Amino acid sequence: MSSRKQGRVVAGHDVNAYLARHVPITQAMGIRLRSFAADGVTMTAPLKPNINDKGIAFGGTLASILSLCGWALTDLVLREAGEVADVFIAAGTTEYRAPVTGRIIARCPLPPPEDLAAFLSAYRLRGRARLRLEAFIETRDARAALFHATYVARRPAK
Amino acid sequence: MSSRKQGRVVAGHDVNAYLARHVPITQAMGIRLRSFAADGVTMTAPLKPNINDKGIAFGGTLASILSLCGWALTDLVLREAGEVADVFIAAGTTEYRAPVTGRIIARCPLPPPEDLAAFLSAYRLRGRARLRLEAFIETRDARAALFHATYVARRPAK
Repeated sequence: MSSRKQGRVVAGHDVNAYLARHVPITQAMGIRLRSFAADGVTMTAPLKPNINDKGIAFGGTLASILSLCGWALTDLVLREAGEVADVFIAAGTTEYRAPVTGRIIARCPLPPPEDLAAFLSAYRLRGRARLRLEAFIETRDARAALFHATYVARRPAK
Repeated sequence: MSSRKQGRVVAGHDVNAYLARHVPITQAMGIRLRSFAADGVTMTAPLKPNINDKGIAFGGTLASILSLCGWALTDLVLREAGEVADVFIAAGTTEYRAPVTGRIIARCPLPPPEDLAAFLSAYRLRGRARLRLEAFIETRDARAALFHATYVARRPAK
């Protein structure tokens, strides 16, 4: 499966295979990229391996999947622009608002186009740039958790 | 193993058995309570199951172990005071400052005594109270991640 945005394929990059190979705890959590499209990145995970003592989703898993949504969006946006970078999270805040009692669905919308353009041009100019993103956990009734984070893209060594 | 603080046992409560039974993803992460003592709560986890694509600890695991440190401290402080509560995290911020390249060690110091006293008295009065805590990931050289969070204790139903 390739990652898609607005019908376009980000050639040769498969986020789920990458996570399975390089971030093994995501497999225990069952985290999967569902889509990369005009509305941003959506990832999902089953409740069962991520349940806590209250019978709802563990907050650490929610922080993890939200962090990964923003990481994937940053990485995929760079790849679509023909760039490859080391992308890492610099800071993230999770606000837990309502319990998650079923399948975990995390969404990270694309940021405003002017933010993306500024991020890409800074990266091309300096080989290092920051992107602020917001994401959330979606349930039928509400946004069960809100997340905002800053990601750094850095040109790989060598 | 029982949980201890300043040499005292929090009778009948074993955080590690509780996590193993009720928060299964902590077992995949290998998260363990090491101590509850005068300096607060210390938890550890091995790097290997929590590694990421850069060969360092995955940020989601760091957010998870830091969240759990504060949760355990809140729960254990209530138990020491003779109270049992449902404890959950309301919000948490993780600032990632340096890579974690070995065993993960997370510490949540006890908050100032006046904060603890206010928390316990609010809980006893209203059956619901908030506690703000700070925690960090410790490496030989630095605090590799800083965390601050708000926890809510609520009197269990029935």
